[in-house]
Amino acid sequence: MTQKKDEILYERAKKVLPGGASRNQVLRQPHPVYAASASGSYLTDVNGKQYIDFSANIGSLIHGHAHPKIIEAAYEQMKKGTAYMVATEVEVEYAEYMINRIKSFDKIRFLNSGTEAVMHLTKVARAFTGRYKIAKCEGAYHGTYDVIEVSQKPNPSTWGDKKRPNSVPHTAGVPKGVLDSVVIVPFNDLENTINILEANKDDLACIIIDPMPHRINMLPASQEYVNTIYDWTRKNGSLFCFDEVITFRVHYSGMQECYNVQPDLTALGKIIGGGFPIGAFGGRNDIMEVLDPIGQYYKYPLSGTFSANPISLTAGLTAMKLFDQEAVNNLNTLTDKARSLISEVIKIAQVPVSMSGDGSIIRLHFSDRVPIDYRENYYNELNQKDAIKRFLDYLYDHGIICVNSLAFFLNTTMTDKEINILADTLLDAFKEVKPYIK
Amino acid sequence: MTQKKDEILYERAKKVLPGGASRNQVLRQPHPVYAASASGSYLTDVNGKQYIDFSANIGSLIHGHAHPKIIEAAYEQMKKGTAYMVATEVEVEYAEYMINRIKSFDKIRFLNSGTEAVMHLTKVARAFTGRYKIAKCEGAYHGTYDVIEVSQKPNPSTWGDKKRPNSVPHTAGVPKGVLDSVVIVPFNDLENTINILEANKDDLACIIIDPMPHRINMLPASQEYVNTIYDWTRKNGSLFCFDEVITFRVHYSGMQECYNVQPDLTALGKIIGGGFPIGAFGGRNDIMEVLDPIGQYYKYPLSGTFSANPISLTAGLTAMKLFDQEAVNNLNTLTDKARSLISEVIKIAQVPVSMSGDGSIIRLHFSDRVPIDYRENYYNELNQKDAIKRFLDYLYDHGIICVNSLAFFLNTTMTDKEINILADTLLDAFKEVKPYIK
Repeated sequence: MTQKKDEILYERAKKVLPGGASRNQVLRQPHPVYAASASGSYLTDVNGKQYIDFSANIGSLIHGHAHPKIIEAAYEQMKKGTAYMVATEVEVEYAEYMINRIKSFDKIRFLNSGTEAVMHLTKVARAFTGRYKIAKCEGAYHGTYDVIEVSQKPNPSTWGDKKRPNSVPHTAGVPKGVLDSVVIVPFNDLENTINILEANKDDLACIIIDPMPHRINMLPASQEYVNTIYDWTRKNGSLFCFDEVITFRVHYSGMQECYNVQPDLTALGKIIGGGFPIGAFGGRNDIMEVLDPIGQYYKYPLSGTFSANPISLTAGLTAMKLFDQEAVNNLNTLTDKARSLISEVIKIAQVPVSMSGDGSIIRLHFSDRVPIDYRENYYNELNQKDAIKRFLDYLYDHGIICVNSLAFFLNTTMTDKEINILADTLLDAFKEVKPYIK
Repeated sequence: MTQKKDEILYERAKKVLPGGASRNQVLRQPHPVYAASASGSYLTDVNGKQYIDFSANIGSLIHGHAHPKIIEAAYEQMKKGTAYMVATEVEVEYAEYMINRIKSFDKIRFLNSGTEAVMHLTKVARAFTGRYKIAKCEGAYHGTYDVIEVSQKPNPSTWGDKKRPNSVPHTAGVPKGVLDSVVIVPFNDLENTINILEANKDDLACIIIDPMPHRINMLPASQEYVNTIYDWTRKNGSLFCFDEVITFRVHYSGMQECYNVQPDLTALGKIIGGGFPIGAFGGRNDIMEVLDPIGQYYKYPLSGTFSANPISLTAGLTAMKLFDQEAVNNLNTLTDKARSLISEVIKIAQVPVSMSGDGSIIRLHFSDRVPIDYRENYYNELNQKDAIKRFLDYLYDHGIICVNSLAFFLNTTMTDKEINILADTLLDAFKEVKPYIK
């Protein structure tokens, strides 16, 4: 029997890449899918098999793959250069555009990834306040800076008392000094969060919240949670920060437009690069001034070879202009329709599956209710591990790509056709894995 | 008098970007240069003025701007998608290519920037060894991860005894735990370096060396320095790591081919992206295995939305194939010729200017000898601040872009024409600033 092209590629890959993959997300057994090409919502692998792509590269492709207007804009710029050691007009235009679009932004700084965005947001919060601790939610993912990775995936043997969760290292070899600088709070648990913040109030530079944390439960932070923490930060000299790297796609100005208070700083990434590498953070003028090398409040030198490169900015600005209020509304309406269809198939299949998410994001849970916090989600995923694996395999086998967390990201090129296929495939998948759900 | 286009852009920029710039490197007074387009070695600004670009975006453009073969390869890939949540053939091909090219690489991992590359190299060294301290050279730049930023730019009031330099925070608000985890050694100073390493031997995960550190003096690490530190790390269980983000261009396999010992891990970036955002690190198989999620030594979870994206990899692989041994030799020969021409004009102008660098990199110093270490370089730059500023202004005014450190990066599209113009312009510039040299 001759080997398929993806089997051969994976054999080669295992010799040169750790685990045979460049990113843990793409790793599947017996081998990853290898993309040959993609357009809009459709991806074709090296064997010629076609998929509908609900991963959108972890939500980063708001207009699907290879949108012609974005590609042509990037190509026009490429012919004039991809990166310079001088400034560009597009960095000014894009900055103006984002500051008009996001009420909490007075100024913005562009970087190369969500990881860089959150890292520099965190470090800027420390530089501005002169304080060394940061607070984050247990189980929240904010990229791969070691500080912000703390307690990204703790387990029952490490996480400690829910009223005061431990700061758990995410990788081996994390210095104690890093762990001591991170305060872990339980998401959407107001009483315990405030108690923990209170115990660290003199040292807290900031609290960082993903307003709808993907890895916890993909439920929005409650208005009360946000407001109370915001008020607490006003009283105690900490900064109130959002990580909207994923959630910016949910509304025209991100999730933050749902709340009646504004973050001091916000990290962005994913969709704002139009499919090219990007990160950014922005916010209050007085804070952003620590980045100004010729200003009187300069405290934070920051350069970066590829930061604000004109390809990512040209593609990003084109993508954002296409994702105007009407496009946001249309996409969210389509996603609401998908939610209704999925609700129906859950009922038809009679499976204990629940749904979270907002805007153009849907996340499924193999449990009767959406887990209320990271710990419930942890146990749920552990208990349903076999069913989830079979479910994902079924979807891949039947031409649906989603994120391994069972998150589905819709894009503006999708129509009724794709969500009908999704609902039909989910129905079959639910029936298939039903015997394995515990 | 009507405002010029760059003046208008900078006025707009100051309202939306801290300091009016996206990257500190591009900031100039009274305003930055704004690129309109660039091709090969030439860049045209928004006012129509042309420059020869010796910055190569801080050395990252080994084939100059918008090399047609790179742009067409990237465009062909763009039409098939810019980023997927599945694997690609090009990640396998490029990994194989780099492992063939670099003797010390058994495996490689691709990321988005040099900052990400050094950060993850550092964290992987910690994960592999289970130790928390890292050693780096005083004044060396390795990107913007806070750990590796320590003592990037200390001054006489902070740097302490040269025999045991202080760990000096680079930005405000750096936690004490971060400073305590970084050991600072003086570059190319064997005795003091070994004494400092010895005092930290039980806790040292790794020592990271840029083999020709740009911000210190752009002199190569001596063979004896490298060998002795290497031997010390073998005896004491630390990893020996190179940062070749800048220096990889110097020889076919980077500066490391000049030494008779191999680094355990090496960080790469800049030229390996063909002008698009990239970072990577690679090295010994047993260390890289901590990244393998399905292996028995897994200690280091690592994902990344844009990591190993097929645009950066396609452009990068195309650029590296074009930068073969012959292209490296030709470029280095041209740069040697430039060095001779510059030596001559220094003599003619009778200025106290010295030169360092290797391969396709030249750095000038306004002093009779190349500073032997960071501290000598610091005082020299401080003393000659006025002359250096006037010199840079003269070069920009007369159509030469270089890095503010007075580093000149040549690229493969350059010929005798460009280096003759460089030498002529430098002669005039030397004469112009001679009265201001102290």
